[in-house]
Amino acid sequence: MEDTPRGRPSRRQMLLGSAVAGWGAALALGTDAVASGATPTPPQPSPPEDAHGSVTIPFHGPHQAGIAIEPQARSTFLALDLLPATDRDGLRRLLRLLSDDAARLTQGRPALADSEPELAARPARLTVTFSVGPAVVALAGRAVPDWLAPLPPFGIDRLQEAWSGGDLVLEVASDDDLTLAHAVRMLLKDARAFATLRWVQAGFRHAHGSQPSGTTMRNLFGQKDGTVNLVPGTADFESLVWRTDGWLAGGSSLVIRRVAMDLDTWDELDRPGREASVGRTLATGAPLTGTAEHDEPDLEALDAVGFPVISDVAHLRRARSEDPTQRFFRRGYNYDDPPSAGAISNAGLIFTSYQADPVRQFVPIQQRLDELDLLNEWTTPIGSAVLAVLPGCAEGGYVGETLLV
Amino acid sequence: MEDTPRGRPSRRQMLLGSAVAGWGAALALGTDAVASGATPTPPQPSPPEDAHGSVTIPFHGPHQAGIAIEPQARSTFLALDLLPATDRDGLRRLLRLLSDDAARLTQGRPALADSEPELAARPARLTVTFSVGPAVVALAGRAVPDWLAPLPPFGIDRLQEAWSGGDLVLEVASDDDLTLAHAVRMLLKDARAFATLRWVQAGFRHAHGSQPSGTTMRNLFGQKDGTVNLVPGTADFESLVWRTDGWLAGGSSLVIRRVAMDLDTWDELDRPGREASVGRTLATGAPLTGTAEHDEPDLEALDAVGFPVISDVAHLRRARSEDPTQRFFRRGYNYDDPPSAGAISNAGLIFTSYQADPVRQFVPIQQRLDELDLLNEWTTPIGSAVLAVLPGCAEGGYVGETLLV
Ligand code: HEM
Ligand code: HEM
Repeated sequence: MEDTPRGRPSRRQMLLGSAVAGWGAALALGTDAVASGATPTPPQPSPPEDAHGSVTIPFHGPHQAGIAIEPQARSTFLALDLLPATDRDGLRRLLRLLSDDAARLTQGRPALADSEPELAARPARLTVTFSVGPAVVALAGRAVPDWLAPLPPFGIDRLQEAWSGGDLVLEVASDDDLTLAHAVRMLLKDARAFATLRWVQAGFRHAHGSQPSGTTMRNLFGQKDGTVNLVPGTADFESLVWRTDGWLAGGSSLVIRRVAMDLDTWDELDRPGREASVGRTLATGAPLTGTAEHDEPDLEALDAVGFPVISDVAHLRRARSEDPTQRFFRRGYNYDDPPSAGAISNAGLIFTSYQADPVRQFVPIQQRLDELDLLNEWTTPIGSAVLAVLPGCAEGGYVGETLLV
Repeated sequence: MEDTPRGRPSRRQMLLGSAVAGWGAALALGTDAVASGATPTPPQPSPPEDAHGSVTIPFHGPHQAGIAIEPQARSTFLALDLLPATDRDGLRRLLRLLSDDAARLTQGRPALADSEPELAARPARLTVTFSVGPAVVALAGRAVPDWLAPLPPFGIDRLQEAWSGGDLVLEVASDDDLTLAHAVRMLLKDARAFATLRWVQAGFRHAHGSQPSGTTMRNLFGQKDGTVNLVPGTADFESLVWRTDGWLAGGSSLVIRRVAMDLDTWDELDRPGREASVGRTLATGAPLTGTAEHDEPDLEALDAVGFPVISDVAHLRRARSEDPTQRFFRRGYNYDDPPSAGAISNAGLIFTSYQADPVRQFVPIQQRLDELDLLNEWTTPIGSAVLAVLPGCAEGGYVGETLLV
């Protein structure tokens, strides 16, 4: 491929395409066609040198942004608790205000009365995704869905209040740290009159463009994490992620589990032991019965001495069910916070999953893992929250309007 | 620029060039010539889609890596205190071990006995820069230089022990978060038998490739920060940054000031007030007497009513001296940590400066700023450390060998 015949994508096109466009990111650089001579469109501005800083994800639409896209490099989860003085009207004002901030900031425009407008100029796929807890639904005067409640307790849980719950959770994600910091600041400033900050969780994946687009993220155990997942754009994703009922139509549910990973004890385990714990190799993420990451695992395969190649207690086997409706969309982020005195790490996974119904789709899997999962030896859930992901809104509207009409 | 005449750089070339190559990063993509048809070189492999993850900064050399380069997107500062049991031999073993880790990891190779070798594969300009405090120099049996001591106290200081001092400071920087987290982990694991962690400071700039290469970073006040600075490769840089004496020849000194920035009170200030506080515009970073970022400020210029355009107490004026030796290389990073209860931000600048002699070059400027500087209204130094930056080492050697021979 040394040359670029007309009509075939150029290497540059592919480079830009993969470096720039997320799965769902609508992006018109508007120059490749010109450069390759394929279409007689009028001259377009040069692609900015900083193409990935300029990429935007549309804010408006039937679903909120920030879910059905290739995950950004960084994500910060903000959990807010409404102040006692915040009534239904206050809640509306808050959601309007934050929606307006998000609508502007995600498109690379400053928020209203933005004190640092220059920090808004490079959205780098900034998204803000709004979810609410039961208190907000009740305040809005709606019946709280049964599933919008803390998960049942699990034996493996060591939950801390400080990492659990929340009335309003904003997932703010971008490929740029500075943009993210600014967006978080603007949102928190505008929320301040209505709510207090309950917890913040900051997560990361590999940097934008440091790996080919679409590469499965690795977690801090070194594992490829996210191989088997619902894929945005597929029928499974559409039917298993989005809700279709009432004020939640177009919305979803979000489970956030903060799972501490004990890197010290994990490091004592040899490589075969690590690979057995999940049922996949570390090098490529291939199932122990295959050679490539996306090979279908053979759960029946036996080794020379008659044991299952993929152990009965491997995470891979335990995390799947015969029931194809027990699936969800995982969008996890690593965390690596300053360790407490005497320790050298404080790391783990901000596990998040989106599904239409957490009780039917998520809980059975978490139950299976609670009963039996080799990974439990090195992982501990220390935070948990279940939220209702609000539907998206059209231009001129605000996220939460279906709740508050 | 819709077309790509032979011999002129293509847009893709410029895109790649700027997205990929740091000041000091030697990188041969080897394909542009082929694509543009300019040179009859044999076909080269396609540029990797993940070019910037693969970029390495050489570890060995007369100076340590991580200083004279365009700053990476992320930097984590680790301050370690030697355990009482760590003697001179232990110190050597520690420095050898950490040098070996750094030599491998920065080149995209796993550390010895690396438990997550896959996380080492994309260095993304990873560097590890070693500095030592007075206790290490004394333990090595060397006279401690006068300047290797805490800075004199300043009126503006509100220093916390928890953010100050340290026997051994490692600056670990990369354009990739995951790589950085892994490198930090490997270094801390190997240091564990010899030292405890005193503090960790994690900083960021804009993401790699989100802005054109060479763009001055913005801090969380929204200011361009770093416009006037020593420039790697220039004679000034060479003579003002590096030491030339004894075991420190090729080394430097490092001042780290953790400066809290009060975003809440800063936000109450109007735009002219903000611009006056530094003497530069927020939009472009141009001096108030000029139009472009790198215009020379006119410190004599008066406004219509006879007042200096750049105030007598502006940061810009106070931070420079008539004495051209009172300069240093700033390499700061923003921090934005989880706020404490009730607050909505905990942000600031990890101000770092490299200079041959902190007492002669840095202290006079800090003194001037302590006496008078409009910015002091919104900034508070809460941590401080002065370190000796060790010289670099050749292949087969280790950082610190000149100290310990
Ligand atoms: C720190 C905690 C966890 C770690 C380190 C971890 C790691 C992994 C890894 C390495 C895989 C294999 C690659 C892949 O298909 O993504 C995997 C798969 C999976 N995990 Fe986890 N996981 C964790 C927690 C959880 C939790 C809490 C759940 C849900 C309750 C979960 C559900 C799944 C599912 C559904 C799969 C795909 C299984 C399949 O169909 O093959 N994981 N996980
Ligand atoms: C949070 C604290 C600080 C902030 C927000 C800040 C911000 C700035 C800004 C916006 C500029 C103008 C752009 C530039 O030339 O880089 C600047 C310049 C400068 N600052 Fe700071 N600064 C801080 C602390 C310090 C400290 C602690 C020192 C040294 C003691 C320092 C030394 C300098 C110097 C030498 C210049 C260049 C002055 C010139 O020659 O024009 N700054 N700073």
